[in-house]
Amino acid sequence: MRIAILGSGFIARFYATTLHAQRRKDYIFTVYSRDLDNAKRFADDYQLAHYTDDMDTAINHPDIDVVLIALPNDLHEIAVAKSAQGKKHVLCTKPLGRTAAEAKRMLDMVEQAGIFAGYLEDLCYTPKFLKSVKAIQKGSIGKVLWTKSREAHPGPHSDWFWDKEKSGGGAIIDLGCHCVEISRNFIGKEVKPLEVMCWAATQVHPIDAEDQAIGLVKYANGAIGQFEVSWTFRGGMDLRDEVIGTEGSIWLNSFLRTGFEIFSVGKPDAYVAEKAEVSNGWLFPVGDEAHELGYPHMFTDMFDAIEEKREPLETFYDGYVVNAILDAAFLSAKTKKWEPVLIEDWRGEEFTAQEEVLASFDDEHFLIKEEVMPNKDLKKILKHKITGKVTQKIFKA
Amino acid sequence: MRIAILGSGFIARFYATTLHAQRRKDYIFTVYSRDLDNAKRFADDYQLAHYTDDMDTAINHPDIDVVLIALPNDLHEIAVAKSAQGKKHVLCTKPLGRTAAEAKRMLDMVEQAGIFAGYLEDLCYTPKFLKSVKAIQKGSIGKVLWTKSREAHPGPHSDWFWDKEKSGGGAIIDLGCHCVEISRNFIGKEVKPLEVMCWAATQVHPIDAEDQAIGLVKYANGAIGQFEVSWTFRGGMDLRDEVIGTEGSIWLNSFLRTGFEIFSVGKPDAYVAEKAEVSNGWLFPVGDEAHELGYPHMFTDMFDAIEEKREPLETFYDGYVVNAILDAAFLSAKTKKWEPVLIEDWRGEEFTAQEEVLASFDDEHFLIKEEVMPNKDLKKILKHKITGKVTQKIFKA
Amino acid sequence: MRIAILGSGFIARFYATTLHAQRRKDYIFTVYSRDLDNAKRFADDYQLAHYTDDMDTAINHPDIDVVLIALPNDLHEIAVAKSAQGKKHVLCTKPLGRTAAEAKRMLDMVEQAGIFAGYLEDLCYTPKFLKSVKAIQKGSIGKVLWTKSREAHPGPHSDWFWDKEKSGGGAIIDLGCHCVEISRNFIGKEVKPLEVMCWAATQVHPIDAEDQAIGLVKYANGAIGQFEVSWTFRGGMDLRDEVIGTEGSIWLNSFLRTGFEIFSVGKPDAYVAEKAEVSNGWLFPVGDEAHELGYPHMFTDMFDAIEEKREPLETFYDGYVVNAILDAAFLSAKTKKWEPVLIEDWRGEEFTAQEEVLASFDDEHFLIKEEVMPNKDLKKILKHKITGKVTQKIFKA
Amino acid sequence: MRIAILGSGFIARFYATTLHAQRRKDYIFTVYSRDLDNAKRFADDYQLAHYTDDMDTAINHPDIDVVLIALPNDLHEIAVAKSAQGKKHVLCTKPLGRTAAEAKRMLDMVEQAGIFAGYLEDLCYTPKFLKSVKAIQKGSIGKVLWTKSREAHPGPHSDWFWDKEKSGGGAIIDLGCHCVEISRNFIGKEVKPLEVMCWAATQVHPIDAEDQAIGLVKYANGAIGQFEVSWTFRGGMDLRDEVIGTEGSIWLNSFLRTGFEIFSVGKPDAYVAEKAEVSNGWLFPVGDEAHELGYPHMFTDMFDAIEEKREPLETFYDGYVVNAILDAAFLSAKTKKWEPVLIEDWRGEEFTAQEEVLASFDDEHFLIKEEVMPNKDLKKILKHKITGKVTQKIFKA
Repeated sequence: MRIAILGSGFIARFYATTLHAQRRKDYIFTVYSRDLDNAKRFADDYQLAHYTDDMDTAINHPDIDVVLIALPNDLHEIAVAKSAQGKKHVLCTKPLGRTAAEAKRMLDMVEQAGIFAGYLEDLCYTPKFLKSVKAIQKGSIGKVLWTKSREAHPGPHSDWFWDKEKSGGGAIIDLGCHCVEISRNFIGKEVKPLEVMCWAATQVHPIDAEDQAIGLVKYANGAIGQFEVSWTFRGGMDLRDEVIGTEGSIWLNSFLRTGFEIFSVGKPDAYVAEKAEVSNGWLFPVGDEAHELGYPHMFTDMFDAIEEKREPLETFYDGYVVNAILDAAFLSAKTKKWEPVLIEDWRGEEFTAQEEVLASFDDEHFLIKEEVMPNKDLKKILKHKITGKVTQKIFKA
Repeated sequence: MRIAILGSGFIARFYATTLHAQRRKDYIFTVYSRDLDNAKRFADDYQLAHYTDDMDTAINHPDIDVVLIALPNDLHEIAVAKSAQGKKHVLCTKPLGRTAAEAKRMLDMVEQAGIFAGYLEDLCYTPKFLKSVKAIQKGSIGKVLWTKSREAHPGPHSDWFWDKEKSGGGAIIDLGCHCVEISRNFIGKEVKPLEVMCWAATQVHPIDAEDQAIGLVKYANGAIGQFEVSWTFRGGMDLRDEVIGTEGSIWLNSFLRTGFEIFSVGKPDAYVAEKAEVSNGWLFPVGDEAHELGYPHMFTDMFDAIEEKREPLETFYDGYVVNAILDAAFLSAKTKKWEPVLIEDWRGEEFTAQEEVLASFDDEHFLIKEEVMPNKDLKKILKHKITGKVTQKIFKA
Repeated sequence: MRIAILGSGFIARFYATTLHAQRRKDYIFTVYSRDLDNAKRFADDYQLAHYTDDMDTAINHPDIDVVLIALPNDLHEIAVAKSAQGKKHVLCTKPLGRTAAEAKRMLDMVEQAGIFAGYLEDLCYTPKFLKSVKAIQKGSIGKVLWTKSREAHPGPHSDWFWDKEKSGGGAIIDLGCHCVEISRNFIGKEVKPLEVMCWAATQVHPIDAEDQAIGLVKYANGAIGQFEVSWTFRGGMDLRDEVIGTEGSIWLNSFLRTGFEIFSVGKPDAYVAEKAEVSNGWLFPVGDEAHELGYPHMFTDMFDAIEEKREPLETFYDGYVVNAILDAAFLSAKTKKWEPVLIEDWRGEEFTAQEEVLASFDDEHFLIKEEVMPNKDLKKILKHKITGKVTQKIFKA
Repeated sequence: MRIAILGSGFIARFYATTLHAQRRKDYIFTVYSRDLDNAKRFADDYQLAHYTDDMDTAINHPDIDVVLIALPNDLHEIAVAKSAQGKKHVLCTKPLGRTAAEAKRMLDMVEQAGIFAGYLEDLCYTPKFLKSVKAIQKGSIGKVLWTKSREAHPGPHSDWFWDKEKSGGGAIIDLGCHCVEISRNFIGKEVKPLEVMCWAATQVHPIDAEDQAIGLVKYANGAIGQFEVSWTFRGGMDLRDEVIGTEGSIWLNSFLRTGFEIFSVGKPDAYVAEKAEVSNGWLFPVGDEAHELGYPHMFTDMFDAIEEKREPLETFYDGYVVNAILDAAFLSAKTKKWEPVLIEDWRGEEFTAQEEVLASFDDEHFLIKEEVMPNKDLKKILKHKITGKVTQKIFKA
């Protein structure tokens, strides 16, 4: 695949580094930046054939197969529109839109144009995550009851993130979009998100947007998807997910505790200390950062999907659903109530019946719990099906 | 100190094991149980001089200094009333009451009787916790912004926990009482809890009470205390706390990952597998369970406080505040809105002003963030104090 | 018990802090120090009734039940001799002697005097360690094949440690004594240590003694006890043990990773940073240091043993065996060969037969290994009992 | 690159899976196996154009650029010989030879033929390892004093590993080759390995070769490289490295504790339980196994090196040095003494002077250690340069 990348900032560099590593056969052909100097510098750094400060030129270049959008949030829509017009496949960084309405317009454009559209939700492509989702689908932990996804760090790198107009919000839009989609994957994308409760506050920074938020998303099958996002965390980048199922649990730590620990009393070392806030003492780097963040597996799925004429794991529709959930979160943070998730075009299951999971002890009693006591006796806690009375029975060892 | 223990169940045995270990000088003199056989068995196991099935006999025995209440929740009030009447010092297990009203009556009784009253909130006495609170008080992590306390396991041992009338609720009352008081200690007990948002559900068990819940408690200084409680967790007993402050963070794992790991393919081993749900494969025991759960340090503080005629770290008043917060949590779970915390007799600070934490770059700009870039340039993100415009400045290395 | 403590330095303070905490009933009555000012300061700090700079006065005070030796290594023998003469029970800090000969003389003195003598090997009393040994004794991990004990930190606090004449050696005598006794407990104290291979070097410090060493101790049942000791480690105090058995494994981390993590960018904090070498960034304190290092459980066993007229878990004889092993280690480091462990008075099993652990597949073949393949086939690797030929058989799933 | 792979077993499949993943541009064209059915099955599984049971056919196919040797140890030499004859670039799996003599012959062949020859030491290419080596080279932990590399699991998959004639040995040759080369990279490949002390035993399996061994390799600059290898470990695959330097430390866990934890009480799950020995309870999978083991970065370096006409990070010469060290280890295990490492053709530095690292306090004293005491006093421990007397000075805070 020959790629036109739009944008030359932090995330564009992450994408380019990934694509030009490990002897991959796809490559970036041209880069667009609003600033021609930046475009040139980027082209030099990644040895690109071409660069431009005209978006149309980049997109419509005849050698280009795919447009890769790595622009600030307020420029996604125009870039998608131009890609759809040019009938080029398009991959868009997260979040898809600043609002569900914006995301829906992008979704409609690509569907009407009949082009491939991939949603670059990298954290749903980390190897740990992919294996966890597969384990859940195979039944390893039973029915998922609760998921939590947490992303926290001391705040983003570029000015536009901190400007609510351009970004669409603070930590919720920047980090919450990851967390919400992570939970959807664990719970099952076919399960409808119903309503959201969210608390958000600006605790530290002199900004209008929130720098800390916690949200709960209730799903049609009774599961809860929790997100915790923060631009105030001190200690590095905290990326953790947890899942509780009826028959097991999953704990993922994707960045700060991955089996790599360095202690240094010596000269401050910027090399290992990336994102660490400190450059000596105990440091916790990751091996290959792009890999740990899911980029290689994400692009592999995207380009494979284009070739195989199938949908990628993460689509523009997913991006739209995420925005719809975040819209409800922003509203809830203001109204201080649970707010419904409004999805115009729900494509999953309309109603997921609560499965009956109550276990019976005998005809008259439910079994609440059984447990082997320290003295080896077996204790069963029962509830009468009619009277509701709770009792316990001891079975001698 | 000579102690009368009321109750002979799981928690009473934990208390007795702690008190009769490590050559401590305080000891249990008598045990009361509703069932005389249980009382006798307990007295035999712990080599007590005396046992009884009459609560008054136990409390009013002339050799008794302190009454230690280890009864089901619905019996705390009567036991406290009898202790107050008998003018005996009293220590009551957690939660203090099933409701704030009940807790308030107990508080009033002991204060009117002028007796010492300690609230046995053991998880606020674990050595890790005590050291963390001290570190916070010394300013190690700056101002506390957010705390989370999580307690999750597959459900309690005795039938009465599962009976809402006797217990006062499910996982919220059983586990949430710990989490709420943990957060209060981290944030500062003088800071007033204002309102609570809580989600609760009965996801797995055939019971009326909740077996999973998440709550947010908002404090007068802007801090948030989050609790996560579950009777559905698979994998052992998950006790974790986290704190984010303006200048640092704390992560505590009190049970499942404490530097003790055993793998066994051999014969199932009940010895190390306690609370582990499985008895082979990877097991994560703790060294000295009572110690890890805070019991020895808790009783030391209680008896020292009696001798030194001071308040213990955890008082009946603390127990009452916890119940008031949990009342609001139960209500919020029903109304699906934030609910105010109603405290009749607030003894902390009436109003905690939000400290001004905004940093200035120069007279005209706030400093949002500064960061050393990979190329060693220093980037500062600024906000104009009047226009609110966000910009960034690069200072060459 | 009323205790006379000899010594007022670092370890004496650790002992005193432990003994006067948690409402223990035993207490220190007098302190001896060579320096009267130090004795007085110690007595003031721990509110002792009495202090002295005359060792005999301390030991022979009529109110004293037990002498607690917390002196530099070169003064252990004289203190034990005086205790034996005074017919007082004696507890001696580790290592017992600087050499096996010295330790043997101390052992003989106490046995001839008929007094109780406890060896204060605290790391064999940590709660994690006690539970691990019990799990091994119950068969949780099968027969122990290999153990490793590692103790590493940046070097001891007091000058005499660094003076080979006074201490008897460097990291081997200071830290290796712990590691060797830890391995003996895991492998079984009845199993005879046969020979030792040791490498030692002075890698960093301007001293005569070794600051880094690794040793292997071969036991009569084929097990290997490995020790790794260092005064050059950067990053805190590293205390880890590992055990491999035929049916399982144990991993213990006693200090640096125990579920307690603090990150601080704020003002350097001596409070949490104890032993950490750095005072901001990620810090890994322990909850209750004395507890994590085994002191409370050690003294409980010692005083209980005196009252119950039984041996403690760690005796002077154990201390002597440890010194005998270390003597062989020092010799091996010089001769660069395996050196025999010379024990004059072996009280364990004289010969431990190698158990036959070879499993048969059928009459003609041993079973080397069986494994389920990714395609679910079962593969068995066999060895012909006579020809020795290795083959594999696949059993289709 | 078009590749001929020799071998179709476990490691060949790992290589093929890596090479045909992540849209890499290099691909396997043909496979050779001694068994034509296995060759065909492999070709089908990886959609290869060609397969054969004739080694020459595979190697000499005109479309082939590189020969990839994934054969049992006893077939490496013949395969290298044929590749050299055919003037094809060659990559050989680890260990290079069964002995240094065999490895030397292979080294000579490829050098005489003038072909590119890469040594497939994957564990020296894991992302964590590559970053660690770079950090050491940048001085993050000062001078390396001691390294340890540990590889332990319950034994290999195929019969030939267990047959000493074919494999060249047991755990030492299979796993020790990794550990030795890991240490060489940490210490610096230019530093000459001088002598080896090794203990080895057959503790569990009915085989002639060792299933457990520990070795120490002494280097010319005073550093020690320790290896620990085992085919008896229970609990999965334990891959850990540690480094102590004068100014810091590194701890790597490459497999069992990488931030991925699953608990399952449900149905046994072969999916996540790979290499785990158990299929429920707590499981510790890795995200992308090939990545964690270094395969993708290894092949990238190899093919890049061919194109860039440079040496790869791991060469046949490295493989030869590793074999020379292992030869000394095998000999030492028999003679029970340190044995010299015999390298015919040493290409590194002939003599690495011990750097003088002794710090002075003043003209007359070395500084042994300085430390801030709990009371904030600064204590310095000194040694007189002439008399050697050790003293301490306290500097009041």
